[in-house]
Order: sequence, then structure tokens, then C-alpha cells
Amino acid sequence: MKEISLMDIAIPLYDRFTALDAVGPYDVLQHVPGVRIVWLAHEAGLVRNDSGTLALEATTTFEQLPHPDVVLLPGGLGAGALMSDERFLNWLREAHAHSTWTTSVCTGSLVLGAAGLLNGVRATSNWLTLDALSQFGAIPISERVVDDGKIVTSAGVSAGIDMALWLAGKLASDEVAQSIQLMIEYDPQPPYESGSPSKAKPETVTAVRELFATMQ
Amino acid sequence: MKEISLMDIAIPLYDRFTALDAVGPYDVLQHVPGVRIVWLAHEAGLVRNDSGTLALEATTTFEQLPHPDVVLLPGGLGAGALMSDERFLNWLREAHAHSTWTTSVCTGSLVLGAAGLLNGVRATSNWLTLDALSQFGAIPISERVVDDGKIVTSAGVSAGIDMALWLAGKLASDEVAQSIQLMIEYDPQPPYESGSPSKAKPETVTAVRELFATMQ
Repeated sequence: MKEISLMDIAIPLYDRFTALDAVGPYDVLQHVPGVRIVWLAHEAGLVRNDSGTLALEATTTFEQLPHPDVVLLPGGLGAGALMSDERFLNWLREAHAHSTWTTSVCTGSLVLGAAGLLNGVRATSNWLTLDALSQFGAIPISERVVDDGKIVTSAGVSAGIDMALWLAGKLASDEVAQSIQLMIEYDPQPPYESGSPSKAKPETVTAVRELFATMQ
Repeated sequence: MKEISLMDIAIPLYDRFTALDAVGPYDVLQHVPGVRIVWLAHEAGLVRNDSGTLALEATTTFEQLPHPDVVLLPGGLGAGALMSDERFLNWLREAHAHSTWTTSVCTGSLVLGAAGLLNGVRATSNWLTLDALSQFGAIPISERVVDDGKIVTSAGVSAGIDMALWLAGKLASDEVAQSIQLMIEYDPQPPYESGSPSKAKPETVTAVRELFATMQ
């Protein structure tokens, strides 16, 4: 039990994170009663996303919040650098040791793996990096949201919204999660059917693979 | 034609905007080749969202970008105040007079209405404020994305992602939009079926209506 009744959800920010990985789940979970969302980084201040054209404010340092109730780690092109950031990985290991839930979006799961948290754990990532999970001893699962014990991982970028609704159901209740879904009118109707490699045209899959390789 | 070949997409920020209304479309449209997304506000600096727990950086003032190619106006609890912000409304009217597309998410359409841009125009908004569009002479349409001439409006919060994919198809091509959908793995699988008032339980609809009334 904490001295105050708020539940802290920590969203770590780092150079070249993907904005929607963080803000999608944020705008679901901020509506859960009793939740306080905290934007963390090595230093308080602006943190830039993968293209450098968006900046979000981190208000708190990792050291200032060693034991959040929930960790929600966004992915991004900067996840590769984060995987060898020992100062961050040490924070993540310590946070996970005390967390209720440790969660990730997209390539965030690779960072959980690099911290040694996924050994023998069923986990997912975005479709382009799913196989890479096995190098950390994880069991790659091609699903939208995968929970194994207190570790919850989600697929690419927009899958974080689905995961956050799942998590809202656990943190509060199905009724609260359903109310939030209605508040954000999450009744998706994409104009195309191209959101997964099994649905997209083969040439689209190839084009995105090639683009992703050049972005790394 | 502009002196440079970039297409400017202006996202106005204002006190108490909804973060996902802005960042969802942003993380789709930033992948359209040749697009530059510009975060605008009355003053450059941090702008806080509806709950005050997230801050995004505005880099440019409205006066500095009078004629963007695309306007993308997010909704939010602050939309009400924006509807009587004459300085902003004047910018919006001038921008719309020159834009290729003028678009909105959620309650952003009420602000387009307040600027006088929706007279006789088919438009949508989030389900809680859809009827309010008629006071501006608009024709309220209960659809996810509604285009009428160069004005494109979308339903609540998460509908901005669907609209942005539609817009990516127009700004570039279907193939580009489909590639972006695959990049952000937008293959939604919400854990509940509660994203619209026609799908949610009646008691959920009532609860959200009451919550929305207290938030205003």
C-alpha cells in the first residue's frame, strides 16, 4: 500500500520513441479512476519522437519514481539504443520487481527482453520484430495483446490502444473499460484492410519491410 | 505552389485539447512523403491537454503559418473556449480560404462551425455533440468520417486515425496509405464491443453521458 491511494502508471520516454505508442494508451488509461500517469525520462524536459517532429514533456526522472504500479514502455526507432542503456535497464528491472503490471507497446518488448524480463515468457512485438524476441528467451506470439503473468505486451503502435483497454478492465472493471471505449469512440473503421501482414497486399508487405530496414 | 515542395499540415493546439485527437492522425500523416507537420498555437511552447497531465510542444504561432495546405483541428474539453476565441477563428477562416483540406477530429468540428465554415455542409462530431452541429447550419451525419468538398470531419477521438488514413490516400495514394496502416499495425481488435452508442450497453451510454456533462 502507498501513502496515497493513487495508482502510478509510468510511461518512460526516450529519444526517438513513437508518439502514438505512448499517447494511445495514455488517453485510455488517464480515464481510469485513481490512476496517475507519470511521464518519465533520464531528465525532466522535452523528449523528441522518432522523426524528431513531436516533443512531449517528461515531468519526472526515473530515479524519482523507482516503484510505479504499472510500467508502460512505448516502442520506437530509439528502442535499439535503449536496449543498451544500462542505467535505464537497471531502473526497469527494479521497477518490474515491484510492479503490478509491466507492459509494452511495439518494439518496447525488445527492451523488456534486453533487461532480461522475458526469459520463458510468452510475448509479442510489432510484426517486423516479432522473431527477434526469441533471442531473449521469449516465446514469440503473433497476437494483438499477450499477457503472461504480470507481463503484458502488445503488437505494433496502434495495438497499444487495445492493450490499454484490456488493462483498464484489470485495473478497474469491464464496465469502466467499456465506458472509456465509448468516450474515445473506439469503433474502428479503417478505410483499408491493410493493418497486418496477413491482410495487406504482398507488395505492401515488401515495401514496408524495405522501408523499415532503411529506418533502422 | 509553394517555394518549397513540402506540404504543410497544421495541427492547432490549445489549452485542454485531447491528445489522441492530435497524435493519432499525426502518427499516420507524418509518414506521408513530402509532408511537414507543424504544431501551432498562439505562442510557441508547451500546451496542456484536457486533463492537464500531458504537454505537447507547439513550435510555431498561428501568424507564422497563415496558409497551411491542410488544417487538422483536434477536439477537446477546451473546444468550447476556442469557439469564442476570435483571434483563432480569424486564423481558421483565412487558413480555410486557402487550404486544400480543412479537417477536424471529435469536437473540433464545433469550432469549424463556430468559424462559420459548416453552413450547409455535411459533417460529423463525436456522438455526444453530433446534434450541436446543426446550430451552425451543418447537416449532422452519424458516420466515422464525413467529407463534403474540402471539409473532412471525423467522429470521436480515435476516429481521427481512420480519417488520417483516408486523407493519406488523397494526399499520396492508396498504396501509401495502406503501407502506413501496416507500419502502425492498425488492425484493431478491441477487447470489448463498446465503441459506439449503438453497440455499448444502455447503462454504459447513460454513464458516459452523465460523465461528459460533469466534464463540461
